[in-house]
Amino acid sequence: MIKLAKISTTPPSGTDKDGTKKRTEGYVVRIGELNEILRAQQKHSLLVVLQGMDGSGKDGAVKNVFKDCTPFNLSVYAFKKPTEMEFAHDFLWRVHEQVPAKGDIKIFNRSHYEDILIQRVHGWIDEERVRRRMAAINAFEELMVFDNRTTVLKFYLHISKDEQEKQLQERIDEPEKHWKHNDGDWEERKHWDEYMRCYEDAINQSKIPWTIVPVDDRWYRDYLIAKTVCEALEEMNLAYPIE
Amino acid sequence: MIKLAKISTTPPSGTDKDGTKKRTEGYVVRIGELNEILRAQQKHSLLVVLQGMDGSGKDGAVKNVFKDCTPFNLSVYAFKKPTEMEFAHDFLWRVHEQVPAKGDIKIFNRSHYEDILIQRVHGWIDEERVRRRMAAINAFEELMVFDNRTTVLKFYLHISKDEQEKQLQERIDEPEKHWKHNDGDWEERKHWDEYMRCYEDAINQSKIPWTIVPVDDRWYRDYLIAKTVCEALEEMNLAYPIE
Repeated sequence: MIKLAKISTTPPSGTDKDGTKKRTEGYVVRIGELNEILRAQQKHSLLVVLQGMDGSGKDGAVKNVFKDCTPFNLSVYAFKKPTEMEFAHDFLWRVHEQVPAKGDIKIFNRSHYEDILIQRVHGWIDEERVRRRMAAINAFEELMVFDNRTTVLKFYLHISKDEQEKQLQERIDEPEKHWKHNDGDWEERKHWDEYMRCYEDAINQSKIPWTIVPVDDRWYRDYLIAKTVCEALEEMNLAYPIE
Repeated sequence: MIKLAKISTTPPSGTDKDGTKKRTEGYVVRIGELNEILRAQQKHSLLVVLQGMDGSGKDGAVKNVFKDCTPFNLSVYAFKKPTEMEFAHDFLWRVHEQVPAKGDIKIFNRSHYEDILIQRVHGWIDEERVRRRMAAINAFEELMVFDNRTTVLKFYLHISKDEQEKQLQERIDEPEKHWKHNDGDWEERKHWDEYMRCYEDAINQSKIPWTIVPVDDRWYRDYLIAKTVCEALEEMNLAYPIE
């Protein structure tokens, strides 16, 4: 059972910044190579789920970790407020549609977990529904694994409350970040403790484990995600088809 | 535990044919009325799954039972051999896309059950995969129920081996049925006992129960399906929205 309050949002003490950045660069290049083989072989697929509070750096992680990947078989899907047609279906309907085909990497910027996070924090669904949704999520993720050789990697981008304030303030102050500013983010911030409780619950009840990523220093965020993605791709034992 | 060999494919003895047909007509009209309210209220939905051997009368059942329903909110989806893109995903991917929205009736002519029927009979998947797919199907159907107020009705159209032969032969002999003739159906017929075993297994392991429909007499098939559909719609307590 993880307890987020006990997990640091900064790199382990003594981590060598320059050395770490160099290793990150190695992983990023290798991810690009492996993505090509994944595409050629069309046997495996990778789903990367990014979750975290506003300002935790989900966009930046995508930009940096996958920058050597071609877009032929890699794409990002950002889950926003459901449309009217999406609301007329079960919560996994729009998510299932977006899962990767064999040979593809799909990145979820937010995901089906929002349906037991924001919806739970605001009491839009009751606890019984949360429990059933969590069970449905576990069944859904396992389905991808056993029936389509999908590797499911889930990252919780762990930011401190102070660092979030800094990030949200920058969106107000810096012109090139201003498009990301949203009053709603400051509203959600008021529910910080409740979000932490719901995240902890989602993480602890997931059958497929999460990686908790300390993100207050962005270079460490990139390192840990790149390392985890690269190792997952290596484990697929990908190979160009020779027949 | 049901045992198909012990269930008759003909109506219960003493069933009054004319009286039954009259009752069927009543159900059919009422289904049409309730479908209108379902559409207006947009709160509930209905999924009708039709499974059965070739010639068991799935098409005919659709035609007769839903003939008073408008197509605004009712549609049929026939599952054929998966496309290349569908094969590149888990088996429920293409099925989930087709489930009914609130306010709709969706009829599946064949369904996700084929993935543990034809695929199992021919040994294209191993028994472990069958087991996991069955668990995934149960989770998937329950998701629709608890998260989208969908009523899931599943009908196994129970035909005798002799009656099937008669039906398949008619497809060869009668010009207006000839478009349905397919050599593959006669091939699948050779695996009759294995199909029965796999159907039994699917039915017995389903959390949401099946209705076993004796179909050798088509008027009884229509009666039992119409009655079951009508009662399920009545149970929704549908009402026109007044606000």
